[in-house]
Amino acid sequence: MLTESHAHVLRLINQSGPLSRSELVSQLGVSKASMSALTAELLGKGMLTEGEIVYGAGRPSVRLALSASSAFFIGISLASHPFVLRVTDLHGQVVGTADIELGDTPEEIAAGIAQAVEAALDGQPIERDRLAGIGLAIPGLVDATTGMCIRSTLLGWRDVPIGALVAEATGLPTFIENDANALALGEHLFGSLRGRDSCAMISAGDGIGCGLIVTGELHRGFRGGAGEIAHATIELNGLPCKCGKRGCLDTLASARSIANAAREAGLPGDLTALEAAADDGNQDAIAILHRAGSALGLAISQLVQTLDPECIVIALPEGPLDGLYARVIRQTLEANVMANEARQIDLAMMRLDQQAWAIGAASIAAGRGFFRL
Amino acid sequence: MLTESHAHVLRLINQSGPLSRSELVSQLGVSKASMSALTAELLGKGMLTEGEIVYGAGRPSVRLALSASSAFFIGISLASHPFVLRVTDLHGQVVGTADIELGDTPEEIAAGIAQAVEAALDGQPIERDRLAGIGLAIPGLVDATTGMCIRSTLLGWRDVPIGALVAEATGLPTFIENDANALALGEHLFGSLRGRDSCAMISAGDGIGCGLIVTGELHRGFRGGAGEIAHATIELNGLPCKCGKRGCLDTLASARSIANAAREAGLPGDLTALEAAADDGNQDAIAILHRAGSALGLAISQLVQTLDPECIVIALPEGPLDGLYARVIRQTLEANVMANEARQIDLAMMRLDQQAWAIGAASIAAGRGFFRL
Repeated sequence: MLTESHAHVLRLINQSGPLSRSELVSQLGVSKASMSALTAELLGKGMLTEGEIVYGAGRPSVRLALSASSAFFIGISLASHPFVLRVTDLHGQVVGTADIELGDTPEEIAAGIAQAVEAALDGQPIERDRLAGIGLAIPGLVDATTGMCIRSTLLGWRDVPIGALVAEATGLPTFIENDANALALGEHLFGSLRGRDSCAMISAGDGIGCGLIVTGELHRGFRGGAGEIAHATIELNGLPCKCGKRGCLDTLASARSIANAAREAGLPGDLTALEAAADDGNQDAIAILHRAGSALGLAISQLVQTLDPECIVIALPEGPLDGLYARVIRQTLEANVMANEARQIDLAMMRLDQQAWAIGAASIAAGRGFFRL
Repeated sequence: MLTESHAHVLRLINQSGPLSRSELVSQLGVSKASMSALTAELLGKGMLTEGEIVYGAGRPSVRLALSASSAFFIGISLASHPFVLRVTDLHGQVVGTADIELGDTPEEIAAGIAQAVEAALDGQPIERDRLAGIGLAIPGLVDATTGMCIRSTLLGWRDVPIGALVAEATGLPTFIENDANALALGEHLFGSLRGRDSCAMISAGDGIGCGLIVTGELHRGFRGGAGEIAHATIELNGLPCKCGKRGCLDTLASARSIANAAREAGLPGDLTALEAAADDGNQDAIAILHRAGSALGLAISQLVQTLDPECIVIALPEGPLDGLYARVIRQTLEANVMANEARQIDLAMMRLDQQAWAIGAASIAAGRGFFRL
């Protein structure tokens, strides 16, 4: 078993990249002797490997890196159909995959997950005690502590103990998280947000999701509702939203709302085709992308004024990452953030694919079951 | 000198109220023996006093409380003229006060502060080594680490090392903070937000300020710009703001913008008179208060959707705390937050007076110089 001190060393190396013993000593504030003992134990368990040699003022020292195959995580995303399952290693690389049979009830879904886990692990050289658990990304409001899905419109769930059901069906520790939070955590532990202490990860897919990293940790909010910018009112008395309010960001900038507007204008609903039409000068396509991009850019500008994050990543499931939609988002954001801050906004776009969702889900198990976040 | 463990015990008792040794043991996760030693040291230093006796399952135990006169803090707010200075004790009670002579340059202001500090301490039974330092609340963007005021429109400052100037003039450790952050910290350490881990403190005075407590700590943001909701765009293409943008919350809901709108309508500019006019049925007064209240309520609803705080406090310098303005804020907030969350919004109004500003400022010194936050 890893102690909290072991986990702390592993977390640091994961966030910073390989570190020498003396770098670890200065960052953790423990004695050289304790650090020697800690790293010897982690090397003995095969968690760390010795890598690059650093030449500094004193004796040359060896940097210690995480050993990719010392821990594995299963990530399952219920954010879209078909559900996705991936097995990742400690470097966040995908080493296994399986399809999950669709079920109707939570119990059927849990049974399907158990079968898929067996299929994914079948023939893999993964020792069971290296498997830190299952991370489950859920589209909806969850209680991460109890493993309860409080509500999910997409799944039609209310107070479903999905964490317990999956843990029982698979016999593996199961951790659940809101899907947008899982994406943010995935990028923070294994992707572009590694080592960044405060950032917002916005997914602009069928719905709009937002996961926040604040002071190096996932910020869930008091009732698990942080990052629900999809239902922030952007347009007073705007379009009716399925949540009961009007003018929510979701009614303006989600892929679903863009597709609706496109259909009404007799245009194809997917972002790729719509961007092509805008490129060709189609005024309706231009207007639709402008409307959606400026709503999202405005919402992000309000988030920046509130939280002042170090960086923002927007993940798009389709369409060009540098098209009109992305340009309008960026311009609206820059125009609506106070000048001093605007000059330094670090905004990146990334592709939101099944892999990203599943790595996000796996990172829940990595964070809670291994790094003890 | 206090160790980090001492400070941790003191922080816990400050947030929870008096605790018995066994309550401290279970909350800090240290051994009974270490806790006995720690509390004996703190009792010896006069930091703790023995209070109420608790009767539980085992032997009756004594609750330990913070001793009010074991530490003192000087709080200075430069948020409004005249500058305010108060001396507080470890319970956050004001025990001394002094006027600060106005100066033009930062150096003159520092010299005026040094004189006022002497005047405030003169004749007080405060041992110098019980004085943890000066907290300085600055209207503007600050770097709390270096003590630098990066910019303050109100003071006309840009890159002024005010922390160092005041420390040099007074010979006391000086800590600076943005004024809205200081207010939030003051309420968190000594006021209504004690023991609340995530909350937003909004001051709706001449300008709009917002200090955020996230996971029990002040959230300053990556460049110290968190809580700048005053310059979040609430109305696209709205009124021009002095920041260069349009439609900022500040142009709609600050006391200054309300007074401007009132003057244009031939009404008195202060909230008290305006609320009285609205009470009498004056349609212009009603419209002005509605416009301001709904802008602020909308901005807070966006903050709630983003952060999901446990509670929100709005501090008003004038006017009734339960007038039309407050009612419109509350109703707009509730109408624009997703239903599930809305039912649980904990919103309180408080009076924003010189005392609140100065206690906020003193809490900076308490937090950084004493509790080691």
